Formats: sequence, C-alpha cells, structure tokens
Amino acid sequence: MDLAIDLAKKGRGRVNPNPLVGAVIVKDGVIIGSGYHEQYGGLHAERQALAVCTQSAVGATLYVTLEPCCHYGKTPPCTEAIIENKISRVVIGSTDPNPQVSGKGIEILRQQGITVITGVRETACQEMNAVFFHYIKNRTPYVLMKYAMTLDGKIATYTGKSKWITGEEARIAVHQTRNEVAGIMVGINTILKDDPQLSCRIDGGRNPSRIICDTHLRTPLSSRVVKSADKIPTYLATCSRDQKKIKRFEIMGCNILTVSREGDHLGLNELMRKLGAAGIDSILLEGGGTLNFSALKSGIVKKLQVYLAPKIFGGVTAKTPVEGLGLADPEEAFQFTDRKIKIFGEDICLEYIKR
Amino acid sequence: MDLAIDLAKKGRGRVNPNPLVGAVIVKDGVIIGSGYHEQYGGLHAERQALAVCTQSAVGATLYVTLEPCCHYGKTPPCTEAIIENKISRVVIGSTDPNPQVSGKGIEILRQQGITVITGVRETACQEMNAVFFHYIKNRTPYVLMKYAMTLDGKIATYTGKSKWITGEEARIAVHQTRNEVAGIMVGINTILKDDPQLSCRIDGGRNPSRIICDTHLRTPLSSRVVKSADKIPTYLATCSRDQKKIKRFEIMGCNILTVSREGDHLGLNELMRKLGAAGIDSILLEGGGTLNFSALKSGIVKKLQVYLAPKIFGGVTAKTPVEGLGLADPEEAFQFTDRKIKIFGEDICLEYIKR
Repeated sequence: MDLAIDLAKKGRGRVNPNPLVGAVIVKDGVIIGSGYHEQYGGLHAERQALAVCTQSAVGATLYVTLEPCCHYGKTPPCTEAIIENKISRVVIGSTDPNPQVSGKGIEILRQQGITVITGVRETACQEMNAVFFHYIKNRTPYVLMKYAMTLDGKIATYTGKSKWITGEEARIAVHQTRNEVAGIMVGINTILKDDPQLSCRIDGGRNPSRIICDTHLRTPLSSRVVKSADKIPTYLATCSRDQKKIKRFEIMGCNILTVSREGDHLGLNELMRKLGAAGIDSILLEGGGTLNFSALKSGIVKKLQVYLAPKIFGGVTAKTPVEGLGLADPEEAFQFTDRKIKIFGEDICLEYIKR
Repeated sequence: MDLAIDLAKKGRGRVNPNPLVGAVIVKDGVIIGSGYHEQYGGLHAERQALAVCTQSAVGATLYVTLEPCCHYGKTPPCTEAIIENKISRVVIGSTDPNPQVSGKGIEILRQQGITVITGVRETACQEMNAVFFHYIKNRTPYVLMKYAMTLDGKIATYTGKSKWITGEEARIAVHQTRNEVAGIMVGINTILKDDPQLSCRIDGGRNPSRIICDTHLRTPLSSRVVKSADKIPTYLATCSRDQKKIKRFEIMGCNILTVSREGDHLGLNELMRKLGAAGIDSILLEGGGTLNFSALKSGIVKKLQVYLAPKIFGGVTAKTPVEGLGLADPEEAFQFTDRKIKIFGEDICLEYIKR
C-alpha cells in the first residue's frame, strides 16, 4: 500500500479535480503490475496497473489507495476491469467520498466473490486526497493559507521590505505547492505593492489560476497579472458593478466574479462557491494581513503553512501575517491541529489543519 | 560520559555561578562511584564521586564533564584528590574556560603520570555550561530571551489579553527555566500592565532575582514585586536620579541600579556589567516588544526561546514580541542559529543561539 501511495503522489498537480490514486498488483508475492492516475482524463490507476502487468492478473491481489469507481465517467468503471481480469482480492486504502461511488464499488466487487479489505493505511490515503475529499463534498476549493514570517511574527520590515524572509529551499517548496494547487489567491494590496506574477517557477511546473480579491476593482490594467491574463487564467473578485471598468478587464482576458459584500470585505464564501463551480478545487492563499484575517473569519481556511525564518526584524509598525480587527479574547482564537514540522535548511515550516 | 552529563544536570539552578559538573569512576568495567556538583559551596563532582566509592579508586578511570580544578576556591583543588586517590586515567568533557584553571588541571595530572583524555562529548559538556562559560569570560549575565506567541506572531489580543497563549505543559517548562536562572528581567510596561509576581511556581523551586528596566522609575510602590522585595532580591534599573524616590524603594528592600541612557532606553550593556558584578550569571528576559528590541539592539541576547501556540489572534494593533523602531532592511535582521525544536503538547518551543 505504501508503494501505491508513493505512486499516487506522482500525479500531484496533474489530476485535479480528480483524486490521486495509486495501484499495485501482486501475485504469488511478486509485483506484476503497478500504476497511478497520471493526468486528468487519463486512465485510472487500476487500469494503468492492469495494462502493464507482466503476466495474467487472474487470482492476484490489487492494492489501491482509493475505492475503485463503479460509474461511467471519462473512463468506464474500474470495478469492471477488476472483475474481467479475475482479480481475487482487493485491498483498499480509503473509501470514496463521492456520493456516486461511496461503498458501491466495494459492494459490486464482493457480489462477484472478490475478497475486499478496506481501511489499510486509511489516514495516509485520505490525507493525500484532502483536497479531493473536501471538494467532492462541498463543491468549494480547499484553501491552504500560507505565509512566511520571522521569529517575531513579521512578514516585512517596517519599511515594507520582505525580500527575502526565508531561504531558497523554502521558496522552492512554495513554488512546488503552487504547482499542486488549482488557484493562487492574493489581495489587492499585494498587487498594488509587489505587482507579482504569481506564477509557478519550477521546471515543468504549471501555473495555477490567479484569483485577486479586489473589492473596489483597483487592480491596474498595467499590472503583470492583467497583462498575462490571456495566458494564465485570472479571476478578479469584486463588489464593483462598474460595467465599463469590468469590460476593460474582460477585454484583457480576465474573468470577473462579482460577489456581495460581507461586512467590510467581499463575500469570501460566495466567492468560494463561484470558484468551485468554475472547477477550482484548491487554493493557495498568499494574502496579506487583511485578506488573511477575512479568510479565517469567514471560515474558508482549511490548512495553514507557516514558514519561519531564524531572524527577527522588530518594529511596532512592521506588518504581521494576520491583521484586520483581530479577535478580542484568547478563548476565541482560531485553533489549529495536526501539526507537522518540516525543515528547509535554516527555515522550518509548521503545517496545521484548521480545527 | 553520558551518565556524568546526566548527573551534572541535576545541579541546575543550584550551583550558579559555578558550572554544572558530573563525575563517574569506573574500575574493571564497573562503576564504583559517581557524583555531581550539587550546590554552590558544596563538594565538587570529583570529590563527591570519590566520597561514595564502593571500593578503592586506585587504578580507576574518572570520567568528568569539566576539567578538574587545580586552585583553592571554596574547596581544595580536585586535582589533589585525584592524585591522592591514585586514579590512573582521567577522561574530560570540556576544558575549563576559567583563566585560573584552563589547561593547568590537565597539566598537573599528566605531570603525575596520569593518562588524560580530553574532548569526549565536548559539545554536550560545553552546551550544558553555556552560562558558566559566558559568565567566566565576560563577567556579564548570559541572557535568554523568551516569549510565547501565536502562529501569527501575537503576544496578546488587540484588547491586551494574553491569558493564556500556550498550554500548561509549556508554562511549566517556563517555570522550570525560571528555576535555573539567576535573574528574570522585564520592562516597566509589564509591571504596569500585569503586576506580576515573577516567581518560580514549581515544587522545591527557588525564585530568581527580579530585574525591572524602569527608565523613569515608574514602578508602583504598591506593586507585587516591590511588596515582596524583602523576600526575593529585586533590582530596579533606572536612569532616574531622584534620590527621594530611590530612597522609598530602598526602604522596601529594592536594589536600585542607576545606569546611563543609551539612545531612548536605559543602557543595557552597563546594566549587564552591574548585574554581573552582583553575581547574576544568567537572565531570563521576559520583556515586551520595546524591551526585547532594545535588548537585541544592544547585543546582550545570547539565546532565544520562542514558544508557539497553534492559534491565531489576528489584529493590526495586537502586540508582537519584538517592536521598537525595528530594522529597515531584511539584510540587517538579527540572525539566529543552532535550532532546537521542543514539543510541549500542542505547543512547540523553538530554541536558537544568537548568531
């Protein structure tokens, strides 16, 4: 199963909004075939593994990280392939949260006399597909909030300089994450201050869609994101109804998502529903303090990555990663759990799930 | 040597300003005696180990974490005891940085035909006595800056509430640290805001001296620290020369340390020299953002402990651990190295040495 998990992960950033799936076929103690879901629309892992088998799979055991599908999607159901190939035993990591499939695949296999074992390395199989599990249930993107700060909680010096806080290893990891998400979201202040490209700068990487939270539609037409909107999908989320302005952005290739206000910020829950409907299953939120606080308050954040550099900037006016009004009482604090500590040279990354 | 190190650490908080030392005596592969420096003025580790030997130490090997002393202090030199007991081999962790001893103890032993091996587990032996090594060389306290913050770098909510940020396990660890240092230092703002006791709340613990940085002598006579100054040594560091005011504090049992100004803060380097002269070899700095920035800027901070709770408070006005003016450029940042990660339940503690 561990091998199947490792294989599954090779599909990262290529199969969205499908789940990552890996499969290994074993006969008489020998691996006779293995495969994974390589890209959206491509063969499912089970079929991939069957296709490369070095001998007949009759009587073999299939290890698969996710319950095999039993419905017709872009490809015919995998349960059929398993039955046809006379596999006698199927070991499953996690069951499918997709209401069209959940438990049904297992049932069909058992009806055919196939031994089915479930829940093997279940947590690892679920974690790997946290995005898929969330998206299939909620139809909104899984939001990962990420920021890099100093040991005294600053994301810039008091003069506004932030290049660089973390070292190269950590910055490469962030670009790797950009390569794995469907969208990257920032606030208007980041656009005005840094005029970023928001692209994925790794070899063979692909660019996520850019999403800019811009309540009053202040993004400059001359900004890099707008100028490259014909090449990389770009969403401007706004409360503005200024059709003339909107038209100008649309001509440049931007998608305008008009959302209602929610307090002093644009409605992030409504925006998530709209982005989910547009097929965005995951978002890396690289906001400043204002957007980050709104995101936490609206409840859209599912995961947190805090990169910490072994430095101190100081400064009573230096920016911190989550600002806005803030919470009044420690008891109300946004809580996080499932800590993971990752090391990137001198820097560390603390990863948590929102409680 | 590992056993000797473990023994040495049992003296924590009781031997200052002496070093922690542990000793183990081995004969024919069997431990025949062991001991450690238990309290200031008490027997040195070597003599303690010799005193409890289950058989004659003639021809035995002595493992000791620090080079044996060869001068008359509160006790006669340990080299004499080693020679008298006819120990044939001495294995030493770290050499003594004390100019009165350094290398001389080793020389004396070798002159007597004793085999001396040095540098065994040297780093561990040095780290354990970082305070002693610093103090003996500089005659100023070793300053450990400590703070507890949220994942977004806040030490309180915007309303000023900070109870509690970390959980019980982390708070116990802080009291353990208080038990190990000679002094605990805060700024006047902490006194005015929290009226803390600054005591060590663990069973059998001892209270460190309290040091309050109070440029204008604004500490209330009715504050808890002043009211308990007759029981726990209390230093008020100030630039004020108001003799009438000073007298009032002295009557309550406070020690007034008058220091010059250094920029917009009292001169911390001068204060450290005065505290060092008063026998304070180590300080736990539990300052707010203003004092912490001044301490970093003046270069007195040697070690950093950042307790991180899995929470976010948010708030553009919420306090952060290091404030003051701050540094203008990321390149100028205060740098830290030798990261250690400690886990306290849901919280973590990142420990660094100032670069």
